[in-house]
Amino acid sequence: MEDRQRTRRPGGRSARVNAAVHQAVTDLVGERGYGSFTVGDVADRAGVADSSIYRRWGNLETLLTDVALTRLNARSPMPDTGSLAGDLRTYAAAVAREITGPDGLAVLRLTMALTSSGQQGLQARDDFLGERRRQLQSMLDRAQERGENPPDALAVLDHIMAPMYIRVLFGADPLTPDYINSLVDRLL
Amino acid sequence: MEDRQRTRRPGGRSARVNAAVHQAVTDLVGERGYGSFTVGDVADRAGVADSSIYRRWGNLETLLTDVALTRLNARSPMPDTGSLAGDLRTYAAAVAREITGPDGLAVLRLTMALTSSGQQGLQARDDFLGERRRQLQSMLDRAQERGENPPDALAVLDHIMAPMYIRVLFGADPLTPDYINSLVDRLL
Repeated sequence: MEDRQRTRRPGGRSARVNAAVHQAVTDLVGERGYGSFTVGDVADRAGVADSSIYRRWGNLETLLTDVALTRLNARSPMPDTGSLAGDLRTYAAAVAREITGPDGLAVLRLTMALTSSGQQGLQARDDFLGERRRQLQSMLDRAQERGENPPDALAVLDHIMAPMYIRVLFGADPLTPDYINSLVDRLL
Repeated sequence: MEDRQRTRRPGGRSARVNAAVHQAVTDLVGERGYGSFTVGDVADRAGVADSSIYRRWGNLETLLTDVALTRLNARSPMPDTGSLAGDLRTYAAAVAREITGPDGLAVLRLTMALTSSGQQGLQARDDFLGERRRQLQSMLDRAQERGENPPDALAVLDHIMAPMYIRVLFGADPLTPDYINSLVDRLL
């Protein structure tokens, strides 16, 4: 965000609108949860016109995933440590930190809300998860290029991400560093 | 339910209240989703007094999990095929059928709603999942008694249930029989 403000000075207003809208969405999700506010509510809170939001994002679902993706990319960026095991351990630890923090189930809540929001919701869900999957795939491709033998992205979802998400959601045993590393070791 | 009606004739009324309340909860969940109705709404719909519900279930959260558990036990009972691989394959296939059906994400929706419902919600969630875990443990114990070498219940959650749930929630690849069996084989 700050980079964008610096690099496109004439876009200062655009960047301010973007920041105000993202903050409004974050606040409304925290206060009311998904499914309980509209584009009009976001516009009011951000102090911008509805039309500015529709022009830039098209619909509420796309806006919600843009906010979630921005947050995820800032907090759990894909690592590049130089080894597959190092990358997966670093990534898994970052995800564990994120999902055990306040509102750690944000991604699951958003995904569940989008699956109940018709065709636009499903499209936004697929775009959102597709983008994260492409990032993960790039990490695995780098391992391949180094001559390592990476699993495919779905196996990472199945055996590293899924167990951690479900354990947090179900209130099962805590995500200790030993447990997280054992998920990675087992997959490799 | 029918068994209870037969075995305790004087309890006919009790069984009818139970059935009406369960049906009212199922309807309200379908129409409004979790978090959007009260014990009073259930009582109105079922044609019973609020006090009957409070006396029998104590609170809304406990009632919600009673309904979910009754449904799960009817649709995905723990199998007893005589072998660990057979039991796990049968169980995994039943869960896959359930979660890819209409309202297949009911357990995840309920669990997520309960995690946001304060202490009574967390207690109801833990009781609910604890009961299913005990059933699963009994299945694994039978394998142990036959001299097989079963995984622990948490490993079944991590590597069979969690990938299936997350794939359905994320709209990832379908749960084919080959895929489901590969999860079981990989764990064993």
